Order: sequence, then structure tokens, then C-alpha cells
Amino acid sequence: MKIALRHGAGGEETAQLIHDIFAFHFQNEILNRMEDAAVLPEMKGVPIFTSDSFVVEPLFFPGGDIGKLSVCGTVNDLACMGAKPLYLTASFILETGLETEALEKVVASMAATAEEAGVTIVAGDTKVVEGNGGLYINTAGIGVRPVGCGISAENLQAGDAIILTGTLGDHHATILTQRLEMETALQSDCAPLNHMVQAVLDAGVAVHAIRDITRGGLATVANELAEASGCRINLEEEKLPVSEAVKGLSGILGLDSLTMGNEGKMLMAVPEQEAEKALSILQKNKYGKDAAIAGKVTEGSLSADRPGQFPQSTATAGGRVAENLLKKNMRIYCQLRR
Amino acid sequence: MKIALRHGAGGEETAQLIHDIFAFHFQNEILNRMEDAAVLPEMKGVPIFTSDSFVVEPLFFPGGDIGKLSVCGTVNDLACMGAKPLYLTASFILETGLETEALEKVVASMAATAEEAGVTIVAGDTKVVEGNGGLYINTAGIGVRPVGCGISAENLQAGDAIILTGTLGDHHATILTQRLEMETALQSDCAPLNHMVQAVLDAGVAVHAIRDITRGGLATVANELAEASGCRINLEEEKLPVSEAVKGLSGILGLDSLTMGNEGKMLMAVPEQEAEKALSILQKNKYGKDAAIAGKVTEGSLSADRPGQFPQSTATAGGRVAENLLKKNMRIYCQLRR
Repeated sequence: MKIALRHGAGGEETAQLIHDIFAFHFQNEILNRMEDAAVLPEMKGVPIFTSDSFVVEPLFFPGGDIGKLSVCGTVNDLACMGAKPLYLTASFILETGLETEALEKVVASMAATAEEAGVTIVAGDTKVVEGNGGLYINTAGIGVRPVGCGISAENLQAGDAIILTGTLGDHHATILTQRLEMETALQSDCAPLNHMVQAVLDAGVAVHAIRDITRGGLATVANELAEASGCRINLEEEKLPVSEAVKGLSGILGLDSLTMGNEGKMLMAVPEQEAEKALSILQKNKYGKDAAIAGKVTEGSLSADRPGQFPQSTATAGGRVAENLLKKNMRIYCQLRR
Repeated sequence: MKIALRHGAGGEETAQLIHDIFAFHFQNEILNRMEDAAVLPEMKGVPIFTSDSFVVEPLFFPGGDIGKLSVCGTVNDLACMGAKPLYLTASFILETGLETEALEKVVASMAATAEEAGVTIVAGDTKVVEGNGGLYINTAGIGVRPVGCGISAENLQAGDAIILTGTLGDHHATILTQRLEMETALQSDCAPLNHMVQAVLDAGVAVHAIRDITRGGLATVANELAEASGCRINLEEEKLPVSEAVKGLSGILGLDSLTMGNEGKMLMAVPEQEAEKALSILQKNKYGKDAAIAGKVTEGSLSADRPGQFPQSTATAGGRVAENLLKKNMRIYCQLRR
């Protein structure tokens, strides 16, 4: 069956769709009450709140799909603040022509990913728009972190080691090759990283900042953190983890893994003396096995050097890295996301 | 300037757009920190969480725009649970070709509505997709309600009075006439109703259930409440508030105000002996001046009468009402929402 406008009319067809697909796969005590809004249990700690929309095309790709992505994205944003993700909402904008079998596959994938991440999908919404079988998903998420947790983009400190939790560019390269109809063995790195982050925090590592290295890639994330904290981030090109497959593709297509998006990788800034400890915890996790210390934080600010310009990080090693970090980050990622 | 794919690439153009439009209009202490997720102050009470996407076309219409709608929708969903709305996220999917002037007008409207409702927009997201100048908005919202508050779709009780907070069909009729390029004096009823609900609750009225009468109209809402509570809702046709303008249009186009969507109207179920008190509080509010007691809750269940069918409410008076309530609710609302 294909989605039609009547599925968004709010009547029986809408109710049936919600019942058969969303309620069936997401079912839990809170959602099942089907109120206008979800009533949550008491939460202990500082509440953290975020939201993200997902527009990736194709909807299914090696290593994941838009549903998995939509849960991982919001879960990871919460984890980046040191929070334990707890509850998600899931809102769907369905284009007419979408096969309900495809929708159900996406929803089942969301449910499985939510289960892995330990989050509950407590509320949702469905709209239908005229289109060509596409699908957009928005997830919003609430988590809690301990009182006193200071993890923040503003909290980088000179001397911090910069850890990357894995290879760069895999998601970006996968989506791009799918769109170009190239046959490769590439897989998106799309993954919920909250348990991995929690393991580092539980070990008592005084993490200063975390960012997931999504749209815009490492260059953008490093720039934003350096700007927010008023410091420099020095990355060493030869230490950046990049798979041979992504390196090969980058060579062919002229891509730069520094500006390629990832959906299961993070940058973590930790005090230098705790870097090895954090690294070994990360490497024990299946999503962190390629983690590497790839740079450090130093004093200084590029805003001062280049007034009137959007702040950029520097790189100590490799002319190519420095040059790329100083280039505009505009790349194909938005097209990737359709 | 028109939105282009580069505005969604995550680089300088994205940052500039966020800086110039979203951060400029929404600015507040929490959002300004521009983390991956918002760190919220402690909240006292039971947390309530919801999300809704908005796809209305045209983006601007008499009485409102997609931005105002997106704030009201989520604020009202929280208010329907007896919650005080506190924080919203705002996520935008921009189609290429959208004029940034139009986007800014929408965002300014969201900011103004958020201010009226007393909510803070603490996080957001922007994606760009190829299209024809359209715009989708998702808002998620968190509010709190007092411990012990039992307002719920499952809480209707036989004997309750059914209050409608105003005239039916105004939003629906407005959007429809805009799309048909008909000239009328119709205005959408789009409004944040949280302060009005709060006034009723503050007066100590033991409200049993509230629903905003959006997509699907009163018929759908009444059906859902009756089903959730295992009771019947009897509405009296001659007591349903409908403006002369909507009545006239309905006559011409064959519409039924029972299935027309509203964006600033609620159904409230209160104990009969408190109905007049609630009504007079509602009527003092500018959004409730046409409030009316339009029916009552009685024992019984239509599911039992019509096994295997989707449950429907009955109407005691008026063949037309009864017939319409028993018809499928599928109407043009999803097309209205594009």
C-alpha cells in the first residue's frame, strides 16, 4: 500500500496507520496512553533537551536507514552533553507514494535502535504531504545528566588531548556512493554512542567536551569548539583515523575526510593525563575500536588573527590539513541529505 | 535571498543563517550557548513531553502563519494535559527557493507567539531539501504539571459537561478559502491557549479532560475521548458555536464544521456542577469569548454497539450531527496541510 493524503487527514486512516505501524513497533506504557502529550516519570538530574530532523536519501543504505539515523542523531546529541538519553518523540512527514512496507521497515529500525540505546519513544506525530514517496523524520530527546557535570563546547582547556572515537567519513562516503550508484563495500557508521560515552564517564574521566562529528565534518566541529572555548585545536593529519576504503574514494572523487559527515563518531576533549585511559575504554567498545588521539588543545584564538571572518581552527601538521581547515566547509552534505 | 542547498551544508552559510535569523529572533540564555543540546534549569512537577510537525500551505494566512501555528500547536498540546509549557525546540526543513525574508517573518512570528505563551525556544535544527520554496517546522515541547493532576483523555466521567472554548471551523475555512483564492473576512483561530487553561485550573475547577480540536475536528476528538474513557459524548447541534461566516461557507462548499480543524479551540470536560464557573472564566479570556456548553458525557460505549468498527460518538440531537459523527472523518484537512 502507498501512503496517500487520506492517511494524514486525522480520521480512520490516520488512526489505522498509527495503530498498525507506529503503536505496534514503538509500544510502551507511556506511548500507549495516546494522549496529546506524554506524561513522564520523575527524572533525577539536570534535564537536557534537543531535536533534529532527518532528510537523508536514499532512505535505506548499507549500515542503516533514516530511522536508525533519526534515533542515533538525537541520542548522540544528548550523549555529547554527558547526558543519559531517556525519552524521544518521533514525528514523521510522509510523502504520498511512500510504500507502507518501507515505512514499517524504518519504524522497526527505529524501535530496534531505541532499544539498543535504552531510550523510550513516548510521543509522535504523522503528517502527509504531496510528494514522491519520500520521508522526513524529526526526533526530539530528553536526557538527564548529573548536577555539576560541566561538559560543554565552551569547556575545552589548553593541554586537553583530542580523541576521535573512530574513522572519519564513512557515512558520508556511503551515502554519496549510493547516490552515485557505485558499488562499494562501504558502510555507514551510524550508531548510538551513548553507552560508550557513559563508560568513559563512569570510569571517572574528567571529560571537558564532546561533539558528534556529523554534518560539516571534523573541520566544522573543531572550528565550533575552538570558537566556543576561545582556544585552538591542533590536529595531526597522520593521526586522523580514516579507513582505506574512504581514503581510496576520497582520492578518486576529490573528497576531504575532514569535512565529511559521520553518524557514529565523536570528538572528545579530555585532560592529557587521562587520554590513554579514555582511549582504552573507547577501544573496548565496538563503536570505538579505531579510536585515536589525534591532536591537542592549545591557547590562542583565531578570531583575533582573522577579524571579521568566521573563526577557523588551525592544524599544526600537513599543509593539506591546514588548508582544508581554513577553507569553507560547504560540501555536498546537504545534497546528501537531499 | 533564496535558500539554497549550501545553507544546509553545515558550514559558514548554515552558521550565518542560524546567526542572522534563528539566533537573532529566538535569543535567550539557554539557546545562546549553542551546544548540541540545551541544558535546562530544574523543573518542579511532572514532566510532559510532546512534538508536532507543521506543513500548512500557504505559509501565511489571515490570522497567522506556519510559525505561529507551530508554537501554538505544541503549547496547546501541553496545556491539554494540564501542563504549564516551558521549553520548545524548533526544527526547520527548508525547501530550496524559500525567500529568507519569508523565513525571517515566520521565525519572528514564532518568537512573538512564544513570548505570549511564556515559553522559551531552547534548541533547534535546520535542514535544506530540494523543493519549491516550502517550509516544514517541527516543534517539541516540555512542560510540567502538578503531581496528582489527573487530566487525561481516559478521565471523562458520566455527567461531565462538555465545554467548547469557541467557534468551530475557523482555521480550516480560512486555509481552504486561501487555497481556493476566495476573498473572505475569515481568520484562522490559531492561538496559544495555555494561559486560558491555566486560569480555569487556577480557579480550582476539577477539569477531567481537555483536547485541542485540531486535525479531524470535533468529531474525531470526541470519538477519541469517548473511546479512551469508555463512555459516550452527546453533543447538541444547536449549541455548537459556529460563526456565521463559517456557516455560510460550509453551506456553499458542503463542509461540516464538526470535522473541520481548529488551531485555537479546545474541548473541556468538567463536572456538571463546575461547568458554569469554568465557562465564565473562559469567556473572560479573548480566546474563549464564544465558549459554550455543548453537550454532556453519558455512560455507555459505542465499541460494544458496533464491534469491529472504529468507535464513534453519538449525538443526541440533530440527524445531521449524528450522521456526520458516524461518517468517516476523512476530509480535506491533510490537503490543507499540503
